[in-house]
Amino acid sequence: MAEADVYSVKPIGFVRSELRDRGNAPMQGHEGGPEAWIEVLPDARDGLLGIAAGQEVILLTWLHQANRDALQIHPRSDPTRPLSGVFATRSPDRPNPIGLHRVTVLEVDDGRLRVAPLEAIDGTPVVDIKPVLAASADE
Amino acid sequence: MAEADVYSVKPIGFVRSELRDRGNAPMQGHEGGPEAWIEVLPDARDGLLGIAAGQEVILLTWLHQANRDALQIHPRSDPTRPLSGVFATRSPDRPNPIGLHRVTVLEVDDGRLRVAPLEAIDGTPVVDIKPVLAASADE
Repeated sequence: MAEADVYSVKPIGFVRSELRDRGNAPMQGHEGGPEAWIEVLPDARDGLLGIAAGQEVILLTWLHQANRDALQIHPRSDPTRPLSGVFATRSPDRPNPIGLHRVTVLEVDDGRLRVAPLEAIDGTPVVDIKPVLAASADE
Repeated sequence: MAEADVYSVKPIGFVRSELRDRGNAPMQGHEGGPEAWIEVLPDARDGLLGIAAGQEVILLTWLHQANRDALQIHPRSDPTRPLSGVFATRSPDRPNPIGLHRVTVLEVDDGRLRVAPLEAIDGTPVVDIKPVLAASADE
C-alpha cells in the first residue's frame, strides 16, 4: 500500500436542521443541539435495517465548511486559550473534517431518522451511522 | 451543494501493529486488542500538540480491506444471526469504512503514539484523532 493513498467518501444522507449556519450552532450536541432529521439517500436505506427509536447511535458527518489546512488552533476560537494541536481538540478545522455526534434515535420514518441532540447544520453530509457499543461505553 | 459530492480523505498516519491480517484480529479493541503504534506522517505532526500519555482518544481509521458495497450483513459473520443493516452494526463492511477506536495513549514519542487496546491491523490508515469528551462520556 502506498503511503500517499487518498480515499473517497460518499454521503449516505444529509442533515435537515433548523440550524442554518456554523456561527449560530452550539459547539457540541450536549450544549443545546436541537432535534434534526437525517435523510438517508435511497441507495443506502437498506443499511438502516435494525435501527429503531430509543437507540443511541453515532453519526459521522463530513464538516464541509471546515478549514482542512489547520493543524493548530485556539480551542473554542478563544485567543486567550493556548494554541493546541487539532488532534487534541474537537475543532471542525482539521485535515479530515469528520464529525462525531452521539445522538438518540427518536423516530424512524421511511428512510429518515429523527435524532437529538445534533449540533450539525442543515445540509451537512452524513457519511456513516454506527451503534454505540454497550460493552465499552464507547462512542 | 450538490447531493452527489464526493470527499477525499487523506491518511494522517498508519497503524503499526503485531496484528497482520483481519482474520486474526479481535472484532473490537476491548475483546483483546493489543498495544500498537500510530505513526503520524510528518506533515500532520503539528496537530499532536497537547496529546499526552494517559489521555483517552478516539482514532478514526480507514478500513482499507472492507467491502464498500455491503448494506446488510449477518453480525459477526454468523449466518445464524438475522440479517442486519450495516448502520445497525460495527461491521467494517459499509459504504464508508471508517473505523472508530477508543484507546488510551500510553506514550508520545516524536510523532508516534503508543496506544491500547487497538484491533486494527498493521498498515491501517489513520484519518483522524479526537479527544474523548468528558462532558458527554461520548465517544
